[in-house]
Amino acid sequence: MSPIRVGIIGLGNVGGGALRILADNASLINRKLGAELRVAAVCSRSIESKAPEELSAFPEARRTTDWREVVESPEVDVVAELVGGTGAAGEIIEAAIARGKSVVTANKELMAARGAEIWSLARQAGVRLAMEASVAGGIPIHSVLREGIAGDRIEALLGILNGTCNFILTEMERRGESLETVLAEAQRLGYAEADPTADVEGYDARSKLSLLAALAFGVQVKPESIPTEGIRRIRDVDFLYADRLRHTVRLLAAAEQTPDGLYLAVRPALLPKSAILANVSGSYNAVWVRGAHGADTFYYGRGAGPTPTGVAVVSDLMNVARELMMGGPERVSPFAHAELEPGSPADIGGEVRPYYLRFRVRDRPGIIAELASILASAQISVDAVLQEPSEAKDDLPFVVTVEPAPRRSVEQAIERMSALDFLVDKPLALPFEKGLES
Amino acid sequence: MSPIRVGIIGLGNVGGGALRILADNASLINRKLGAELRVAAVCSRSIESKAPEELSAFPEARRTTDWREVVESPEVDVVAELVGGTGAAGEIIEAAIARGKSVVTANKELMAARGAEIWSLARQAGVRLAMEASVAGGIPIHSVLREGIAGDRIEALLGILNGTCNFILTEMERRGESLETVLAEAQRLGYAEADPTADVEGYDARSKLSLLAALAFGVQVKPESIPTEGIRRIRDVDFLYADRLRHTVRLLAAAEQTPDGLYLAVRPALLPKSAILANVSGSYNAVWVRGAHGADTFYYGRGAGPTPTGVAVVSDLMNVARELMMGGPERVSPFAHAELEPGSPADIGGEVRPYYLRFRVRDRPGIIAELASILASAQISVDAVLQEPSEAKDDLPFVVTVEPAPRRSVEQAIERMSALDFLVDKPLALPFEKGLES
Repeated sequence: MSPIRVGIIGLGNVGGGALRILADNASLINRKLGAELRVAAVCSRSIESKAPEELSAFPEARRTTDWREVVESPEVDVVAELVGGTGAAGEIIEAAIARGKSVVTANKELMAARGAEIWSLARQAGVRLAMEASVAGGIPIHSVLREGIAGDRIEALLGILNGTCNFILTEMERRGESLETVLAEAQRLGYAEADPTADVEGYDARSKLSLLAALAFGVQVKPESIPTEGIRRIRDVDFLYADRLRHTVRLLAAAEQTPDGLYLAVRPALLPKSAILANVSGSYNAVWVRGAHGADTFYYGRGAGPTPTGVAVVSDLMNVARELMMGGPERVSPFAHAELEPGSPADIGGEVRPYYLRFRVRDRPGIIAELASILASAQISVDAVLQEPSEAKDDLPFVVTVEPAPRRSVEQAIERMSALDFLVDKPLALPFEKGLES
Repeated sequence: MSPIRVGIIGLGNVGGGALRILADNASLINRKLGAELRVAAVCSRSIESKAPEELSAFPEARRTTDWREVVESPEVDVVAELVGGTGAAGEIIEAAIARGKSVVTANKELMAARGAEIWSLARQAGVRLAMEASVAGGIPIHSVLREGIAGDRIEALLGILNGTCNFILTEMERRGESLETVLAEAQRLGYAEADPTADVEGYDARSKLSLLAALAFGVQVKPESIPTEGIRRIRDVDFLYADRLRHTVRLLAAAEQTPDGLYLAVRPALLPKSAILANVSGSYNAVWVRGAHGADTFYYGRGAGPTPTGVAVVSDLMNVARELMMGGPERVSPFAHAELEPGSPADIGGEVRPYYLRFRVRDRPGIIAELASILASAQISVDAVLQEPSEAKDDLPFVVTVEPAPRRSVEQAIERMSALDFLVDKPLALPFEKGLES
C-alpha cells in the first residue's frame, strides 16, 4: 500500500499537537490504517525562526513558509488547514480542493460561516473534507452524529461548548468570586484570551452550535442568526441563589426541534445539580443528545488544548486516508486496527489498588487482631476499620479498608483467612477505582 | 444513485427496533445518505404466525422463514444478522460473506469469540463488516474508537457494560434491599432474564470487554481468559459501608495498558460518588476512556433496548451503504447529510421554560407588589421569592422564580420593568434547563 502523504499548514497549538501525535503514535497509526500516514510537508510563517520541537521527528518533511508550496505539491494527498480564522484559511482550503487534494480542518469559524459552500466545492472535485476538530476538540462529536448514531432522528441537543466560560462559571461557583476576578485570573493562566469577547459573549459557542445544527439536523444556519447571550451579567450572587434551588449556572448551547421549527440558542441557564451536564466543570466540554429512537446519549471530554484537538485532526487524517485507500478492498476494520494480534490479558495479580474487605463474622474477641496479623504478614497496611452498630452477633458484618496492595497479595491473604473459624463466609474484596471525578 | 438493498435476518427485539427506525426515519436516512436504503428481504422463523407490526411499512420486502433465501438473493447487498448467539448466526454471516454480501451484526458473543476470523473472511471477500450494536447498544463506542479518536493511543478504559447488573446494583443502593429481592423484581419487569447467569456472573460484560480490547488495543483476547467476577456476593450492607466511604459499588469492565501487559478484568469495584461513572444509574451503560493525548473522554447512553440498539444497526447499515457507494465521489458528508438546507432558527419566543429572575434593587416598600403585578399582567405566575439576608439596601439582590412561561412573555415583562426607578440594572432572566438527570 502506498503511503498517504499529508501536508500540514499552521504550526500553532493545534498543528504542534497534531505533529506530536503523528510522531508519538506513528506505528500505532500505521497499524490501524494498514498503510503509512506520512508527513510530507509542513508550513508555518515562523518555521525558520522558531520551528517547534515536534518537527524534529520529521526530518524528511519539506519545510516552507509559503502555504502555496504545500497545496501545489504533487507530493501531498491531504492538506490539514490549521491556520484558523476566516482569512487565509479559506483561500488555503479552496486552493487545495481546486488541486484535487482532500482537506482536514479544525476551523469552526470558517466552517460555520462557509462550510456548506466548501463542502459543495469538495464534492464537485471528488475530494474528502473532514472537520472533527472544529467543535469540542477532545470529543468526537462529528463522528458520533455523522456515523455513530446516523440512523437516529435527533430531537434536541444541549452542549457546554466553550471551555473558557465553563472554567469561569465553575470557578465563580467554587470560590464565590466575581466574574471580573476569575476572568482576570483565567487570562493570567492563559485559559482566556487578552480579548475574551468571542468566548465571554458566546460567539465561539454560537459558531459551534451552528455546526452541530448542520450535523444533527441538516440545516445551514448563519451563526449571527442564533439568539446569543454571553455570561457577562452573571454575578456571584446567582450561584448562591442557584444553590438554594439545588441548581447551578452554565453557558448552554441548545438546539431543539419544535412544532414552531428549530429552536437554537446560546445562553446561560440554570441546570439541576443532579444533571450530568451540571457536573461538567473547568474547561471540559460536553454534549447531551436526545434521539427519537436511541433516547439520551452524552459525550464528554476536553474542549480544547493542543493534543486533544490534535487527536481530532489526526483521526480525521486517518479517516480520509482510509477513504483514499478504498479503491481496493481496504476498509476501516470494524476492529479499528487493520490486523488484530492474538493476545491474552496480562496476569492481573500485579495490579495495585486500595481494597475494601468486607467480613461476616461470628463475633468474639480477637477477630481484628487475627485478621490484621494475616494482612500484615502479606505486607498489606490497614487503612480503617468500619463497623455499623448491629445486634447480629452470629452474622456481624464489618469492613476493613487497606492501603494500595497488589491484587495477588490481597487474594493470598483472603485465602489464608478462609481457615478462620469465626468467618461466616469468604471475605469480599473490592478494589477502589477512581473513575472520572465529576 | 441506485438503492442499497438490505436483508434483515432475525425479527426479535433488535430486528423489530431496526425495522421501526428504517420505517420512521426513511426520508431522513435517504437524505443523509444521498441514496435509498431499501429493505429488500426479511427473515424470521415466525414471520407467518406473528409478523411484527413494523413489517407493514415494507409491503414490497420479500418475507421468508429461511435465512438462506436472504443470503442467496441477488436482490440483497447487505445482510443484517440479528439472530444472536453463536450457532446459526455464524453460518449466516459466513454464507453472506461467501456470496459477496456485506454484513452488519449486533452479535457480541459471536464477534468476541470469532470476530477476527470473520473479519479476515470479509476482507478476503472484499466486503464490509460492521458491529456497532454489539457493545453498549445505545452508545456509538465502536465508531468513537474506530474513527472518532482513532489517532489517540488508548491507555485505559473503564466501562459499565451490563445494564442488568447496573440496574440491580443501583436499586439495591436506592432501596436498601438484597440482590435476591431486586433480581426477582427485575425478572418480573423483564429487565433480567429467567436465567440471569450471563448477566449476573459477568459473562456478558466479559464478551463486550473482549471486543472493546480489540477496538482500543488491537488485540484478540478470548473472553474466557479475562478474570471475571459477577455481582452475586454483593450484599445490601456493602452499599452502607461504601456510602460511609463516599463511594458506591458498580460492576466495572476495566482495561489498562501497564508495564506488565494489558490488564483486563470484569469485577465489582468501589467508585467515588463524585465520579461521573458512579452517576450512571439504572440500565444505562457508560464508557470512560483515557487517551494518551486526548486525555479523558466519557460516553453514556442506553445499553440495550430495541430502538437504541436498532439505531446502532441502522447507523451501521448507513455506513456500509456509504462505503458501497464510494466507487464514485459520493462520500459521507462532513455535515452528516448529503445536502444541507439553508435555514434559519425558529423564533425562540414561543419556547416555554420556568425562569429565574434576579433583581438588584434600591430597597423600599412595595417592590415585590410592583414586580408581581407586571408579571401577572404578562400571565406569568410567581413560583417563589428568595432573598438572602443583606445589609446592602442600595444594591439588594433577590430572586423570583416563575412557573413555565414563553420566553417572549418573560422578555416583555422584563422590558416593562426597565422603567421602574428602584432597579439598579436590568433584571437577569435565566431559563431552567433539565439536562440529563444523573
